[in-house]
Amino acid sequence: MSAPVSKGLARALRRAKRPSIPRARQAHYARTLHEPMRQFSSTPRQRDDTSEPKHHVKYTTDMYPSLQRDAKYSKITADHVAFFKSVLGDDAAVIDGVTKDAADDIEPFNSDWMRKYRGHTSLVLKPKSTDEVSKVLKYCNDHKLAVVPQGGNSGLVGGSVPVFDEIVISLARMNQIRSFDDISGILVVDAGVILEVADNFLAEHNHLFPLDLGAKGSCHIGGNVATNAGGLRLLRYGSLHGNVLGLEAVLADGTIVDDLGTLRKNNTGYDLKQLFIGGEGTIGVITGVSVICPQRSKAVNVAYFGLPSYEHVQKAFKEAKVQLGEILSAFELMDSQSQGFVQRVTGNKRPLEGDHPFYCLIETSGSNTDHDSEKLEKFLEYVLSEEIVSDGVLAQDETQAKSLWRWREGITEAIGHWGGTYKYDLSIPIQDLYKLVEETRERLTSKGLIGDDDSHPALGVVGYGHMGDANLHLNVPVRRYTKEVEEAIEPWVYEWIQKRNGSISAEHGLGIAKKKYIGYSRSDTMIKLMKQIKNLYDPNGIMNPYKYI
Amino acid sequence: MSAPVSKGLARALRRAKRPSIPRARQAHYARTLHEPMRQFSSTPRQRDDTSEPKHHVKYTTDMYPSLQRDAKYSKITADHVAFFKSVLGDDAAVIDGVTKDAADDIEPFNSDWMRKYRGHTSLVLKPKSTDEVSKVLKYCNDHKLAVVPQGGNSGLVGGSVPVFDEIVISLARMNQIRSFDDISGILVVDAGVILEVADNFLAEHNHLFPLDLGAKGSCHIGGNVATNAGGLRLLRYGSLHGNVLGLEAVLADGTIVDDLGTLRKNNTGYDLKQLFIGGEGTIGVITGVSVICPQRSKAVNVAYFGLPSYEHVQKAFKEAKVQLGEILSAFELMDSQSQGFVQRVTGNKRPLEGDHPFYCLIETSGSNTDHDSEKLEKFLEYVLSEEIVSDGVLAQDETQAKSLWRWREGITEAIGHWGGTYKYDLSIPIQDLYKLVEETRERLTSKGLIGDDDSHPALGVVGYGHMGDANLHLNVPVRRYTKEVEEAIEPWVYEWIQKRNGSISAEHGLGIAKKKYIGYSRSDTMIKLMKQIKNLYDPNGIMNPYKYI
Repeated sequence: MSAPVSKGLARALRRAKRPSIPRARQAHYARTLHEPMRQFSSTPRQRDDTSEPKHHVKYTTDMYPSLQRDAKYSKITADHVAFFKSVLGDDAAVIDGVTKDAADDIEPFNSDWMRKYRGHTSLVLKPKSTDEVSKVLKYCNDHKLAVVPQGGNSGLVGGSVPVFDEIVISLARMNQIRSFDDISGILVVDAGVILEVADNFLAEHNHLFPLDLGAKGSCHIGGNVATNAGGLRLLRYGSLHGNVLGLEAVLADGTIVDDLGTLRKNNTGYDLKQLFIGGEGTIGVITGVSVICPQRSKAVNVAYFGLPSYEHVQKAFKEAKVQLGEILSAFELMDSQSQGFVQRVTGNKRPLEGDHPFYCLIETSGSNTDHDSEKLEKFLEYVLSEEIVSDGVLAQDETQAKSLWRWREGITEAIGHWGGTYKYDLSIPIQDLYKLVEETRERLTSKGLIGDDDSHPALGVVGYGHMGDANLHLNVPVRRYTKEVEEAIEPWVYEWIQKRNGSISAEHGLGIAKKKYIGYSRSDTMIKLMKQIKNLYDPNGIMNPYKYI
Repeated sequence: MSAPVSKGLARALRRAKRPSIPRARQAHYARTLHEPMRQFSSTPRQRDDTSEPKHHVKYTTDMYPSLQRDAKYSKITADHVAFFKSVLGDDAAVIDGVTKDAADDIEPFNSDWMRKYRGHTSLVLKPKSTDEVSKVLKYCNDHKLAVVPQGGNSGLVGGSVPVFDEIVISLARMNQIRSFDDISGILVVDAGVILEVADNFLAEHNHLFPLDLGAKGSCHIGGNVATNAGGLRLLRYGSLHGNVLGLEAVLADGTIVDDLGTLRKNNTGYDLKQLFIGGEGTIGVITGVSVICPQRSKAVNVAYFGLPSYEHVQKAFKEAKVQLGEILSAFELMDSQSQGFVQRVTGNKRPLEGDHPFYCLIETSGSNTDHDSEKLEKFLEYVLSEEIVSDGVLAQDETQAKSLWRWREGITEAIGHWGGTYKYDLSIPIQDLYKLVEETRERLTSKGLIGDDDSHPALGVVGYGHMGDANLHLNVPVRRYTKEVEEAIEPWVYEWIQKRNGSISAEHGLGIAKKKYIGYSRSDTMIKLMKQIKNLYDPNGIMNPYKYI
């Protein structure tokens, strides 16, 4: 069905002199992308891995009945609260549910944004400086009071909310941009600065935060660093382990780790700050971050392709790396099923004619619009003429680019439409990446769990994700959560990942959700070494207990 | 003197349609760059920070008489040697100076390549596998035998040679490329693979090692990682903390840290491998490295500028980041003095007419020659017309590009010509970077230490380095090493750096050379935390003693 379109487009591309856009493709666009989008949420980017809450939030302790409060921790008393009030001064800095009723004020700090995890805390502290964080932690450590650091509370594994009565230390009031140097591109911020606030600030200075993700409007930079967030720009700008130049953090005993350097190079001793990046608040509270920020790209282009097989997707990715090289900023994978669900839910016309087994979204970001368009068009022409891709479109403006992105970013919402989704965020060597989706599909089909009518719990098996980072989101949309589906997937999926030396958590972290599965991605030796570090920095175990390792 | 040339070039550039090269510049080139280079060594890239040895190598223990051998370490016996021979099997794996005379064979392992540091070891072990390293270290730990891991022995701070009788563990026989995946770009190597071998292998697969440095022909990748080497590609590809995806290492007690993942994303616990990156062999021996390698650029362009002030250098750097963006791969700074010394020593004609207070070398690397040339020419036209730079040339082929690079890379050799050089490798916030050179020059001048005749020990003060990384090489060429010069510079220079939160070792590490100065770049708290880590991983202190923290 797509072949004639493909050939026409390929011919048109061959005829076209750069940088004009082939007529065939313009017509194609007029037919599809200018139609209004229906049913999509109005936020331009939605989170990858959740849907809207549809039920009352259960306590985590009810969901995990085997969890017991550790008796070594003290219970919070009025005396403790009085101390915290004396240190933090401001009344707004202490939400006190210990000496009075403050349930409504505290609830947002007890529950995560997915409304999947819910704790029992009765005290929230909002320090305004690193010194205050230090005083609070020292006191907690001396008095064996457990704490949970909380940023924007937008995590996906329940890491930022209490389980029992741990004191919430919110960084929300530490929200100042400390400095920016537009020659070196080095930004220094308080941990509680919201990612989007920082990125907008940088935009005014023609720079870019080297991290972008769906929750940017609410997540804190400190939380991003604590969870080593990956997101949409990692392919191009690399991970936080490379981009974070310095950190300020407070250890359990109140020690201030003063490593907030603003130097690109500093080879004077162990790079201790790296332990806090992805440490999920279990060895200290991050209070300040120094990060190197790249120049903002003047030109951003987006293309969307249909491909006949996963083999072809790999070829296209390899070719994109060669031909687009330094301007390639995203290479996203979506399977036919994922796009089918988006269409079923939104009713929108697809960007391409017909149905293709696979789709890719490619984004380029560079400093010269003409050059980038030319590279992308040449690439498009090549992959079409070599029959690596079957069909493709290239966004002509920002509106069209956003429309194309929605076919990738709308997947989460679409597949959650029928009731729920089993979600797995996995790293897999790129050759095997899609095989897991196929095998999961076969497995659930052979067990009779997938079908079109209500007698089957699952609607299908969907695979998509950040191809450029070998990061697969394996999702199973269901009409209802059932033991049969869960038991068909787990621990089978983790064993599958383990055999291929993959990761059971590519970018979301461990939190409470994946704590018990770490052994599938880490050896006993590594886990033992991690526990050593935990014991070294937090011998009383007050930092974010019941989670991580 | 340069003004008319500048204007002519600017006009020519304005007239020229891309991608033709303006006549003025071609003529300019014909006059300078095609002349044969004299006196330069034949190696295309020389090390930044040393000159050829000119004297007999003193023992480190004679240079640092306060150093005492720690009596807690055992002396090596014939029984120990017999054990190592039984484990390593192969005779070639043990250079035994304990039970026989092997002084000549051992000497290269006792002395560093600069012939600045020299140890007293009588035993060199060359394991061929991680398992063998593990057995060796476990035995050494049990028997309190101190060790020093050694890669290519090309470090600049004496970190890779023994001080007393520490056993050298050479990784030279662990030199296999384990795997390469040309879709993801992930390379896995033994620690003993030579950087250039890996880069040549990658070149065959159109990829690039994300690190390049003068010693590439001899340095080991394991050593690069252990010292967190910076080098020439950091501006573009980032640091090893971001690019190293996995490590295999052996702890003092023989524990194998099996963290050799090949995943771009893996958020399952503390990122412990980061501690070994820049750990300089003090907490374990790196045996395997997994690294993400970028696509090799098809187009490489080099330009060389003269500028009227450091203010203008900063403007040019800022503009280069904006206009060259994703293709900028080097921005190197050289002052007038540095280029004067190169000219005096080589007698070569300079790339530009006249003398300019500052020079910059800009390199771009990209996937499209035409696009890159156009960007670079447009940039050149802009900075000339805005009078940010006074004059400039653009290499027309690889030979010319190499010639231009030699004006940067020949500095080290040129300034060492008169006898010696005091060398400092520093990170400084970019605004203040050159101020240190000026103040050092004023300081030595006011003390009467700089002059044209032999009565003055110093010839001048030279500043150059990796502007893109805010990494300055402050060098003082001298006719002879004198206490007066040394005392005029140290510790004054370190205090200067400390006041500006700079680093006393940007990319060379601490080793033995900078061990005692760490306090100028790190707080007591940070040093205490580092010592904790050292004690955690190496409680007997057998790993590379007398160095680092």
